[in-house]
Amino acid sequence: MSTFGTLFRVTTYGESHCASVGVIVDGCPPGLQLSAPDVQTQLSRRRPGQSNLTTPRDEKDLVHIQSGVEQGVTLGTPIALLVKNEDQRPKDYSETDLYPRPSHADYTYLVKYGVKASSGGGRSSARETIGRVAAGAIAERYLKQAYGIEIVAFVSSVGKIHLPSTLPPTRAQDEDVSDDAEQPLSAEFVSLLKSVTRADVDAHPTRCPHAPTAERMTQRILRAKEAQDSIGGTVTCVIRNVPAGLGEPVFDKFEAKLAHAMLSIPATKAFEIGSGFRGTEVPGSRHNDSFVLKDGKLGTATNWSGGIQGGITNGEDVYFRIGFKSPATISQAQSTAQYDGTPGTLAARGRHDPCVVPRAVPIVEAMAALVVMDQLLIQQARRGAASLLPPITTLPPTMVLPSHHPDKNEHA
Amino acid sequence: MSTFGTLFRVTTYGESHCASVGVIVDGCPPGLQLSAPDVQTQLSRRRPGQSNLTTPRDEKDLVHIQSGVEQGVTLGTPIALLVKNEDQRPKDYSETDLYPRPSHADYTYLVKYGVKASSGGGRSSARETIGRVAAGAIAERYLKQAYGIEIVAFVSSVGKIHLPSTLPPTRAQDEDVSDDAEQPLSAEFVSLLKSVTRADVDAHPTRCPHAPTAERMTQRILRAKEAQDSIGGTVTCVIRNVPAGLGEPVFDKFEAKLAHAMLSIPATKAFEIGSGFRGTEVPGSRHNDSFVLKDGKLGTATNWSGGIQGGITNGEDVYFRIGFKSPATISQAQSTAQYDGTPGTLAARGRHDPCVVPRAVPIVEAMAALVVMDQLLIQQARRGAASLLPPITTLPPTMVLPSHHPDKNEHA
Amino acid sequence: MSTFGTLFRVTTYGESHCASVGVIVDGCPPGLQLSAPDVQTQLSRRRPGQSNLTTPRDEKDLVHIQSGVEQGVTLGTPIALLVKNEDQRPKDYSETDLYPRPSHADYTYLVKYGVKASSGGGRSSARETIGRVAAGAIAERYLKQAYGIEIVAFVSSVGKIHLPSTLPPTRAQDEDVSDDAEQPLSAEFVSLLKSVTRADVDAHPTRCPHAPTAERMTQRILRAKEAQDSIGGTVTCVIRNVPAGLGEPVFDKFEAKLAHAMLSIPATKAFEIGSGFRGTEVPGSRHNDSFVLKDGKLGTATNWSGGIQGGITNGEDVYFRIGFKSPATISQAQSTAQYDGTPGTLAARGRHDPCVVPRAVPIVEAMAALVVMDQLLIQQARRGAASLLPPITTLPPTMVLPSHHPDKNEHA
Amino acid sequence: MSTFGTLFRVTTYGESHCASVGVIVDGCPPGLQLSAPDVQTQLSRRRPGQSNLTTPRDEKDLVHIQSGVEQGVTLGTPIALLVKNEDQRPKDYSETDLYPRPSHADYTYLVKYGVKASSGGGRSSARETIGRVAAGAIAERYLKQAYGIEIVAFVSSVGKIHLPSTLPPTRAQDEDVSDDAEQPLSAEFVSLLKSVTRADVDAHPTRCPHAPTAERMTQRILRAKEAQDSIGGTVTCVIRNVPAGLGEPVFDKFEAKLAHAMLSIPATKAFEIGSGFRGTEVPGSRHNDSFVLKDGKLGTATNWSGGIQGGITNGEDVYFRIGFKSPATISQAQSTAQYDGTPGTLAARGRHDPCVVPRAVPIVEAMAALVVMDQLLIQQARRGAASLLPPITTLPPTMVLPSHHPDKNEHA
Repeated sequence: MSTFGTLFRVTTYGESHCASVGVIVDGCPPGLQLSAPDVQTQLSRRRPGQSNLTTPRDEKDLVHIQSGVEQGVTLGTPIALLVKNEDQRPKDYSETDLYPRPSHADYTYLVKYGVKASSGGGRSSARETIGRVAAGAIAERYLKQAYGIEIVAFVSSVGKIHLPSTLPPTRAQDEDVSDDAEQPLSAEFVSLLKSVTRADVDAHPTRCPHAPTAERMTQRILRAKEAQDSIGGTVTCVIRNVPAGLGEPVFDKFEAKLAHAMLSIPATKAFEIGSGFRGTEVPGSRHNDSFVLKDGKLGTATNWSGGIQGGITNGEDVYFRIGFKSPATISQAQSTAQYDGTPGTLAARGRHDPCVVPRAVPIVEAMAALVVMDQLLIQQARRGAASLLPPITTLPPTMVLPSHHPDKNEHA
Repeated sequence: MSTFGTLFRVTTYGESHCASVGVIVDGCPPGLQLSAPDVQTQLSRRRPGQSNLTTPRDEKDLVHIQSGVEQGVTLGTPIALLVKNEDQRPKDYSETDLYPRPSHADYTYLVKYGVKASSGGGRSSARETIGRVAAGAIAERYLKQAYGIEIVAFVSSVGKIHLPSTLPPTRAQDEDVSDDAEQPLSAEFVSLLKSVTRADVDAHPTRCPHAPTAERMTQRILRAKEAQDSIGGTVTCVIRNVPAGLGEPVFDKFEAKLAHAMLSIPATKAFEIGSGFRGTEVPGSRHNDSFVLKDGKLGTATNWSGGIQGGITNGEDVYFRIGFKSPATISQAQSTAQYDGTPGTLAARGRHDPCVVPRAVPIVEAMAALVVMDQLLIQQARRGAASLLPPITTLPPTMVLPSHHPDKNEHA
Repeated sequence: MSTFGTLFRVTTYGESHCASVGVIVDGCPPGLQLSAPDVQTQLSRRRPGQSNLTTPRDEKDLVHIQSGVEQGVTLGTPIALLVKNEDQRPKDYSETDLYPRPSHADYTYLVKYGVKASSGGGRSSARETIGRVAAGAIAERYLKQAYGIEIVAFVSSVGKIHLPSTLPPTRAQDEDVSDDAEQPLSAEFVSLLKSVTRADVDAHPTRCPHAPTAERMTQRILRAKEAQDSIGGTVTCVIRNVPAGLGEPVFDKFEAKLAHAMLSIPATKAFEIGSGFRGTEVPGSRHNDSFVLKDGKLGTATNWSGGIQGGITNGEDVYFRIGFKSPATISQAQSTAQYDGTPGTLAARGRHDPCVVPRAVPIVEAMAALVVMDQLLIQQARRGAASLLPPITTLPPTMVLPSHHPDKNEHA
Repeated sequence: MSTFGTLFRVTTYGESHCASVGVIVDGCPPGLQLSAPDVQTQLSRRRPGQSNLTTPRDEKDLVHIQSGVEQGVTLGTPIALLVKNEDQRPKDYSETDLYPRPSHADYTYLVKYGVKASSGGGRSSARETIGRVAAGAIAERYLKQAYGIEIVAFVSSVGKIHLPSTLPPTRAQDEDVSDDAEQPLSAEFVSLLKSVTRADVDAHPTRCPHAPTAERMTQRILRAKEAQDSIGGTVTCVIRNVPAGLGEPVFDKFEAKLAHAMLSIPATKAFEIGSGFRGTEVPGSRHNDSFVLKDGKLGTATNWSGGIQGGITNGEDVYFRIGFKSPATISQAQSTAQYDGTPGTLAARGRHDPCVVPRAVPIVEAMAALVVMDQLLIQQARRGAASLLPPITTLPPTMVLPSHHPDKNEHA
């Protein structure tokens, strides 16, 4: 269905050519200062037409708050937001409509519903993400003010052009000799995760915070564009200052909810948390994150876990990487078949992004914010409830959190 | 929380040293023939002690059906299943309990709940997965009987030892020259996905269906064991005969639910559907799956999408890969800190799996079955409801599924 | 939260003075012919200003469909509907704002959220019900077309003026002598339930389908109005042609969901299904509904159960009664206290309904439609799934529904 | 389905003749001292065989904790509890099995599922309530310790024998003359609600806390028993010390959740909160609850609202009444029809309660506890989240709760 979250619950609506797209955000804490521009910033980062790397459609995407906010303060009631569609007419019928577009949702929507929107993919339209970005902006605003949480996503690869040292320099496929020195990720990349800011990311149209790589990515995207082709890439995201204790065992582990959220973004194909697939190749003795005292609080010396152990955040940075496939819509002719099976050739009309990852950055941030927000509220309920009980005196000390522990009342 | 699913709803309970672990399966279709041995088969594939590659603890894990089945037939009411814990005493306290185990859930459980089980990680215990495997076995039984659905998972890598051709033979990191011929996955691997059976998988203790690789994996695991270390790996899973039309836009896309399910399995760090991360490096023109007529039905010539387009299954095989980290519990001494921050050295007691992927295979299959089952029931409701409406005559033909289409009443 | 339903999921938003009120309806079957006027009819029955019995505010309440419908057909995707608020300015502050209105939500909203809308009760505004009525109109349209389901609600009492024979003529309080002849409801009322139509209901402004009683109710309401006072009443609702088999044991019994839905309507205080409280006074021997063959199908001779047994519909008419309190807003002065506890006198400004039951009729119908729709979809999933299994041959005949039974494929 | 609650989530399983009945309680706050006897007390109040008014079956109903508790303290993880069924053999087939029992769930279960348990009503078995009572006992324990909340239910009527003054002494049906002096409930009954204890209730086998009425009820029940008949009744429940601010607008109003919970108990037909149906007959001017200062806190002079305004608790006592029908199972012969429609006569075998209300008392208390607990946790999350935001300075004072208000941090 079109709802995400348990206590911070987001429901989106809208297709490409209907009256509007939008979202109802239910469960936002009352008393948060909020106005339309707070949401517009992220919507504007999402919209097309921002550089020659994206589709030249210039959509305004102005957000209108319908409810839940009065005199600039949230009431705790549902916040409805909508963005009007500029082009509200159903698409005209043409010969290309006889073809389900390859690797698109035209065919699956038709089979699923028995009827589909004239624009084909219905809710798989990129415009659906407007509602998510708007909702995420609200969550992020709360997280920043209440916890100082920072969420920064950036483009880490385009095609085969990777941010230097995202992956280790050498990779001896099917060999097992280099174990001893190898780390899942380079020190340079780990350092980037600690410091990268949204300003760094927006400094280049590719949203890659490493200028030389960004330039090479640009060339790769332009090459795809010239070839009437497309290219995929990856986005990496880091969440800093996440309190320890978030994430619900068993099925709603923090990384499981993140994976769910990320794989719900159109065109995503892969997700990895912390060391990810690379971590599966490194022995436990070097992959384990030892505990150390940091600022009077238990932390870990390394962070290959990506800030999560047993499905629960441990207070270290949470970071993850998402793979986006090469866009399915390309202008070059493709051999394929019509709905009735007749073979033929299809060439997409209109203008399309040769690469979606730069625009995906704010969507990834939004979905991350929704996950953190929902988990925070759930943990808030638990710790608040537990804090009203008398202290436990009957258990061995290692089974009970000492009352002076800095996390003790963190969420109460 | 400990519940997964909307209409096929699974709730597990239990820690390592409590009376039992188990599950309530709510929403199983009535009229399914079911008895304990049907569930036991998969439980036995999951339990430890099956070869010298796994921990020598020999747990019986006999399942007891508590409800929901009478005279060998499901009633449609909740099916409760339980497996008694052999060792029901809380663990004795020892000096090692002063240490949160690195990359384990000891610390995060304590911070989350303010209290933890003597065994440390509470619900992150591997025994929790018993409930999932039991529930999955029921789902799988229905899927097989009603739809002929087959789910087969297998070990695709251990450390750096990969099934040949899981990944393309060459990989020019940070280069962009070899685009033109490269496929996301080798033809050999694609062919394996089409034909691999559970018997092939169980033919070798590693659960890798390619004998020479299985042998190399064995050596790699034994090397880890001898070094008192551990090693990770990946599991690949294929689901065949999935009807087209499953998966709920927007947030509950089929791959999003799969990712959620898989990342909820202990020790998982990564997920990719279809071409996955590799697919991000291949241009759209070669990544797109063209349509062709197959057996009188629209299908795709290639299947880099992994059987899903726009979050909805298209009738092709669904396949995906999951990364499992190297187990955190190792016998060699590790430098770390106690709960109070005091630095020290910890060596795990007891016996532990040097590599979990062989035993993870039935867990992956179980979680896959739960996702398919739940999505099938939801789509069943929709198509059943739509089939009672009069035919639509007012829309252009490409917006409506023809009444003679083979998928038209597939789920009705 | 502001969401109702599992598979037919309705989420409303909006307060009195925000930009709009509205709803997202998720899970509507695709292929339903739908346009704004289909929804407007029920909205117009709900709005104020329809007679001298209701508040003279004349709100247009024109509905705008935002999504989910193309060329007059539902797509299966979320249908967003909105109605603009005429007065979008936050209410001016006045001396009466120092007082929480007695028996109103001003105080509880402030305590719950720590902040409240200028209009006081926030989401307890009667305008919130616009979203429900719009959603219910869609559900009702499907139910009528696919199942011939009819939902009719009417006013059964105003103050002490009851529809003749809603309740038995005599009632010997605290006595136990008249058991032998008494029925829970009179034959005349049972007959009315079978035949009453929406046209009968709308024939009189009170929405009481019995003209002489309607006239007495009018007088009662006008007397309350003249006295600057208010009066409550009851609404009875009947649902005809409900298929047998709806309702989910254990917690989501059909009557439990109905009770939940009805008690969520503002100003409701009571709910009874079938014979209700009266049925508690009649011995089992006379309260039981014997089975008889009707039209080749098993039915019941009487229907004191209100069409539900064990939480599951049995195919007979479902009927229930809801109590609405006398409106809290009255113009006469009331002795009460300010937010800070200072005693004083409050007289409501503006114009208000002296009695809400006539306008509550379409809201009750809407909530009833939402319950039936959601339960139908859930049962659809189950029966569709069960129908794909091989027939059961191992059970005694009274444990299995014969294949020729008319209900066998009713929902498949 | 068989799950109730959002954050305090209860899932029950079990039929009459399966291995066990039980429950998983997910979301219990960690750190609560809990052992089996704490749960057993309420289970024992529920079980049959306690007096000559109930069925003489003597079921032990000993509860076994399976998980979630270690060394007498809850871990915050799912608590599974089970009670073995004494008679685990499926019921033998007999001639009476050809008949669906009138007003029982035999027929509806068969139609719903296409298959049913040999015992007929499957999950509508009274034994299902064991799981609820066990879960409720845990919730109640927390509520008592953390908030001092008291829940007391009692029998308020059997047949026509009502607790004196539950209802006003005179009731001029269809008249409208006595408005001016009438109160919805008598002062005597209001006083009883304030003071009644569980000890008062258990002092008499009928669980009516007014000895003379209890005696008359006994006679009424024995008369039904002798006549091989049955009789219904009502249970009233009061919840004291509920914090203000619980209940979720719009659909999950506190009274809506209570109504849902109560109507999910087998044999219930009616629910009213506060003044209930009676309140619909009293004008607003006398029904409104004026505010007064009580113990330095805003309270109400009367409490016809039943402690809830706008769906949110206001800090006054919550009280409500539930109607239970006369039990359907009676020993006298009934004219009815077989499953195939053949008319005939059925007389129930075995022994059955002539009246269920005494045993329903702990079930009502349990369901009440589940509702309060779940709503508390949800509100805990909201207030905890809001408390981390900077104070609001931009709104008029009547829109913001003063920081010194006693409710300000009540749930934080």
